[in-house]
Amino acid sequence: MPRYRLLVEYDGSPFVGWQRQDNGVSVQGVLEAAVEKLCGHRIAISAAGRTDAGVHATGQVAHVDLPRDYPAETVRAALNYHMNPQPVAVVEATVVDDGFHARFSATGRSYLYRILNRRAPPALERKRVLWLPMALDAEAMDAAAQRLIGHHDFTTFRARDCQAASPLKTLDVLRVTRMGEEIHVVAEARSFLHHQVRNMVGTLQLVGRGSWSIDRVTQALEARDRRAGGPTARPDGLYLTGVRY
Amino acid sequence: MPRYRLLVEYDGSPFVGWQRQDNGVSVQGVLEAAVEKLCGHRIAISAAGRTDAGVHATGQVAHVDLPRDYPAETVRAALNYHMNPQPVAVVEATVVDDGFHARFSATGRSYLYRILNRRAPPALERKRVLWLPMALDAEAMDAAAQRLIGHHDFTTFRARDCQAASPLKTLDVLRVTRMGEEIHVVAEARSFLHHQVRNMVGTLQLVGRGSWSIDRVTQALEARDRRAGGPTARPDGLYLTGVRY
Repeated sequence: MPRYRLLVEYDGSPFVGWQRQDNGVSVQGVLEAAVEKLCGHRIAISAAGRTDAGVHATGQVAHVDLPRDYPAETVRAALNYHMNPQPVAVVEATVVDDGFHARFSATGRSYLYRILNRRAPPALERKRVLWLPMALDAEAMDAAAQRLIGHHDFTTFRARDCQAASPLKTLDVLRVTRMGEEIHVVAEARSFLHHQVRNMVGTLQLVGRGSWSIDRVTQALEARDRRAGGPTARPDGLYLTGVRY
Repeated sequence: MPRYRLLVEYDGSPFVGWQRQDNGVSVQGVLEAAVEKLCGHRIAISAAGRTDAGVHATGQVAHVDLPRDYPAETVRAALNYHMNPQPVAVVEATVVDDGFHARFSATGRSYLYRILNRRAPPALERKRVLWLPMALDAEAMDAAAQRLIGHHDFTTFRARDCQAASPLKTLDVLRVTRMGEEIHVVAEARSFLHHQVRNMVGTLQLVGRGSWSIDRVTQALEARDRRAGGPTARPDGLYLTGVRY
């Protein structure tokens, strides 16, 4: 059973999320259906990040064990062929040894959150960005973001249904940069709690619009209480951009 | 009747093109319906570039005469409100004097053509790029592009149904640049013939894949015969990015 590592890109907007669910089409379901068309078997696929409904990926990593040896190029081409016209693409396929696990071997995950900060709503980037029309101070957002860097109890930024054993995480990077009409928030950590990036972005935008001081972000973190944090930012602006091994 | 100049962005994929037509929804139709909701009158809107079905815009310019004085900000906000959820946005509205005509006052148009040049099909950028999976030599494409710069008879790159009085145009810029997985073709001229950008891109990709020499592009131009040119590139990758006045 050779194992294949897949680098996967998708538009999250039509999907119920990465994970197979009863209430709609998932990215995992689309990939598994393509694998079944390729080799005749239904085989479970694991991914590094179980992205929520509406969340996109340019650098998701998954793995799958196939019942026979296919050239990696054949796997990539066949899966893309069978997934058409769903907006999911296998950008790269590589044979890996069976010690590799897309989720458990991962040592880092990177996310990008895109905010469109202009008066007019998005036309071309609808469902690809969070639209915030009010003035936002990206430098204040970046200063506030630095208060969250390091090893902390992130209960304030954790979804109620989060299944992680511990709320302790180490946040390595949280950088806010203005890029013309957009504000980009880059987040990097070994792993994240459920909704952690979206809850941090929802809090930072309160600083950006002047509703919150930078110190209040520190207080929210220290409260270890979800009710002390800002709202959960919409999934539309979030991209899983890379996984480190 | 105050005149308003509108900077318009749209995702062309669901539309029959800029121009009102019987066979589907047009960008012009969406804008005119929104104007009617704002002021109760059906008023014709003119644009600088009558983009084809599937062609996008980040910098289309249009003008409209309204029956009363609205603050420009109100016009922008109200049109965007009424166009929702169509993927068309008025990014800017400005009051202009009635000597301004979006089409006839324009002295330059800029287009961008995006090619996704990788083995895997697009997922996030589906309908926003032309996917060409074979190896392409962007430098050769750029060298060939320079053969088309200047004042020429562009009959070879003109759609059969083109209604321009003359095939003579001056092409100011045609630049091909690799940007990671994408190849960008930027074209600038006072005005273009119908399908001119798409026909030039369809020809340049033949050079990029090694099917055509650079000299053959010169010969094609000199033939003044549409049959001597390459195919018409799909609309998906084309963006009207700006209009100069």
